[in-house]
Amino acid sequence: MKIISAIDSMKGSLTSKEANQIIKNTFEDEKISVEPIAIADGGEGTVEAFVSSRNGQIKSALCHDLKGAEIDAQYGWLADEKTVIIESAQTCGIQFLDGTISSHPRKTSSFGLGEQLITACKQGARRVIVGLGGTGTIDCGIGMLAGLGVEFFDNEEQPVSPIPENFQQIARISTDHLPNELNELEIIIASDVQSVITGETGAVYMFGEQKGLRADELVEFERDIHKFSQLLLANSESQPGDGAAGGIALALRTIFDAQIVSGIDLLIQYTDLEKRIKQSDLVITGEGRMDAQSLQGKVPVGIAKLAKQHGVPVIAFVGEVSGEPLEFEKVGLSVIIPIVAQLSTLKEALANAKQNLELASMRAKQLLFLLQKNKEE
Amino acid sequence: MKIISAIDSMKGSLTSKEANQIIKNTFEDEKISVEPIAIADGGEGTVEAFVSSRNGQIKSALCHDLKGAEIDAQYGWLADEKTVIIESAQTCGIQFLDGTISSHPRKTSSFGLGEQLITACKQGARRVIVGLGGTGTIDCGIGMLAGLGVEFFDNEEQPVSPIPENFQQIARISTDHLPNELNELEIIIASDVQSVITGETGAVYMFGEQKGLRADELVEFERDIHKFSQLLLANSESQPGDGAAGGIALALRTIFDAQIVSGIDLLIQYTDLEKRIKQSDLVITGEGRMDAQSLQGKVPVGIAKLAKQHGVPVIAFVGEVSGEPLEFEKVGLSVIIPIVAQLSTLKEALANAKQNLELASMRAKQLLFLLQKNKEE
Repeated sequence: MKIISAIDSMKGSLTSKEANQIIKNTFEDEKISVEPIAIADGGEGTVEAFVSSRNGQIKSALCHDLKGAEIDAQYGWLADEKTVIIESAQTCGIQFLDGTISSHPRKTSSFGLGEQLITACKQGARRVIVGLGGTGTIDCGIGMLAGLGVEFFDNEEQPVSPIPENFQQIARISTDHLPNELNELEIIIASDVQSVITGETGAVYMFGEQKGLRADELVEFERDIHKFSQLLLANSESQPGDGAAGGIALALRTIFDAQIVSGIDLLIQYTDLEKRIKQSDLVITGEGRMDAQSLQGKVPVGIAKLAKQHGVPVIAFVGEVSGEPLEFEKVGLSVIIPIVAQLSTLKEALANAKQNLELASMRAKQLLFLLQKNKEE
Repeated sequence: MKIISAIDSMKGSLTSKEANQIIKNTFEDEKISVEPIAIADGGEGTVEAFVSSRNGQIKSALCHDLKGAEIDAQYGWLADEKTVIIESAQTCGIQFLDGTISSHPRKTSSFGLGEQLITACKQGARRVIVGLGGTGTIDCGIGMLAGLGVEFFDNEEQPVSPIPENFQQIARISTDHLPNELNELEIIIASDVQSVITGETGAVYMFGEQKGLRADELVEFERDIHKFSQLLLANSESQPGDGAAGGIALALRTIFDAQIVSGIDLLIQYTDLEKRIKQSDLVITGEGRMDAQSLQGKVPVGIAKLAKQHGVPVIAFVGEVSGEPLEFEKVGLSVIIPIVAQLSTLKEALANAKQNLELASMRAKQLLFLLQKNKEE
């Protein structure tokens, strides 16, 4: 029998690739083959997922992280399709935040992502897939735009430094000095974040605090980002998805006409996942936390819906689960298995994730074949 | 298909009966019948397990708990076999201890168990099964003996009050005034405790602290119990099992020639468990904590060994598990499923045991039939 293993990363503990490898180790035997498919929704692991889907290459180039430190950031290159894959988490990832003043959302910048887009041009890309997710910045993409050559001026036509604390001063955005190569580049945003740019479900109120804003700073930050976003939105309306990666999506969409597509849907397409699922007997998926939000198109649910169409059963290994089992069954998630199996704190659970997944997958395999085995004997 | 559910109690959270009922609720449907078998190893739940195995009656009689308070203690009556079942946990159970001075092992008494044996005689029993386990006393059965009419004297032939703090004074034990009915009574001890009476693996050093002795009191208490046990052992050698229930086993064995048998083996015999397992397709068992000790003849392992002989697969639901999965598989425990499935403390796990077992059993059922179901479709 054939099993597809497509587990999303479990944040803070296992990458998609590591989780799939555990499943392969557990399930594969004389009668069972396991095909691991690295998965991501735009966040961390997106480059790896796309590259492994098409036998692409992982490359890297020097650029800057959200605090301005030099880093060697990875990107993916699919030569046949002249496509570069970058992810905001590589340069603006939340993992770079350390609670210091330079980590504050007023200071942090997506500049590195702009540099990565320039790298893509130099690589000869005709298309760039920009994975958005796991980002630590809320700069509405101003850093990235600056990295590409966009300029910002105040009321007196003086240049303004491109960081959020200057949002109120910016009166005009100039794209006069963008490199020509960008005109030829198709930019696709891979993201499963539905946030709008401002308001209750926007980039500030939804994600601000986890990125380092204090509760008492939200109102002012929201006002500032609203001011800047209005400049970007001069010729269009705000859309769901604009708030992804602290507003980087809005900047890419309004300045470069980038298209926002579902990260998992795009990956499903790139990996031929539907065909591969159709040819399998069982799909194994999972993610760190499964809850009501997961039903809104996060990875396992996207995969389960596909499997359901083809009558293939799905089991999902999760770090934590909450919500109605029936709701998950409806979308094709036949069994959801929490991997935590002993008394533990969050810290312990994260530290033991590998072993927990190993044991949980062993138990699942035993149960899946327990009655069959007996029949055969 | 037919499932046997024989889960041991999960101490502090679920009785055997409750756990089996959850399994029945989850698994039973048009195609699956579930036969619940209440299980116990001599400890709490033994009366219920034996009574339900043979359609016996639960009766009760007034007697005294380990601190001397009047209680209505249950016993089981199997009329056809003229057999009474009592358990030490009903009168001397650890649940009666409250940390007060009268809860101290120097004071607490198994007197109530003696009263229950008298009740058994009055009931017309020819045999009494005495379940030992979950006991809070370490009185070497002196209280029970007193309850039956045994008398204790010092060097000057003065009567001595039958509690452990007087052990050093006792020079002679008199059985002259035991009721005659006791001569006709066959006493069987149902216990899976392997402790000897004294020494490192004895009643004091193994269980003393959990019954209220301070570490600095162990040496003296051990010396006292050793003195008294030597009187009981005047005509015989100490045996493994004598230390069960704080030495009640030793008293029953030496004074009444009671036979010590494995609690679970006896129950297996009374419930016709082997025959019923043989006729089933799956056995579900479990207990609160499964560890290396479980391999020494505790409930799920006893049941699993039996199932293994007849090629019936076994799954065990447990509160906690430690130890080598392979060791458990060897004895027939095909899959061990911890029911804890979220971050939790011991207190939370105990409080949520019912829901945890419900969810774990649902997941197990889904997995057991996932691939079969799919094949049928």
